[in-house]
Amino acid sequence: MKAIVTVGLKPGVLDVQGKAVAGALKELGFGAVEEARVGKVIELDLAHITDREEARAQVTDMCEKLLANTVIESYRVEIPG
Amino acid sequence: MKAIVTVGLKPGVLDVQGKAVAGALKELGFGAVEEARVGKVIELDLAHITDREEARAQVTDMCEKLLANTVIESYRVEIPG
Repeated sequence: MKAIVTVGLKPGVLDVQGKAVAGALKELGFGAVEEARVGKVIELDLAHITDREEARAQVTDMCEKLLANTVIESYRVEIPG
Repeated sequence: MKAIVTVGLKPGVLDVQGKAVAGALKELGFGAVEEARVGKVIELDLAHITDREEARAQVTDMCEKLLANTVIESYRVEIPG
């Protein structure tokens, strides 16, 4: 079973990488760019799990323990298909 | 208008970050994890663009010029809503 985790900074946390991307895009002539936010996406292949809710529970546990720094980051778990 | 860009390594390119994540999850007891792949997600706010196809064209141009290293990375552009 596949799972997709998206991790991003919580609102209010300064996104220096996003600011750098927005600045670089403007300098390249993309004047329409107002803001950019940069996050991570982690695709997981899980073996021996066939129940979607079991997959979601395990992946949420992975986010809390390793994949996200929940002090400053929020995460979203998707089980596609 | 909002745009979401997802950038990941092309198949066949060694994903060292993904391998590290998979190894760490296994060590934490998540034995179901077979593979992990790590990519970037960039959310953009675009001003003065109301046409979805114009937004998609501009963001694709941004990917080619800055957001993705197209030698080793592939990207996907979504214009949500």
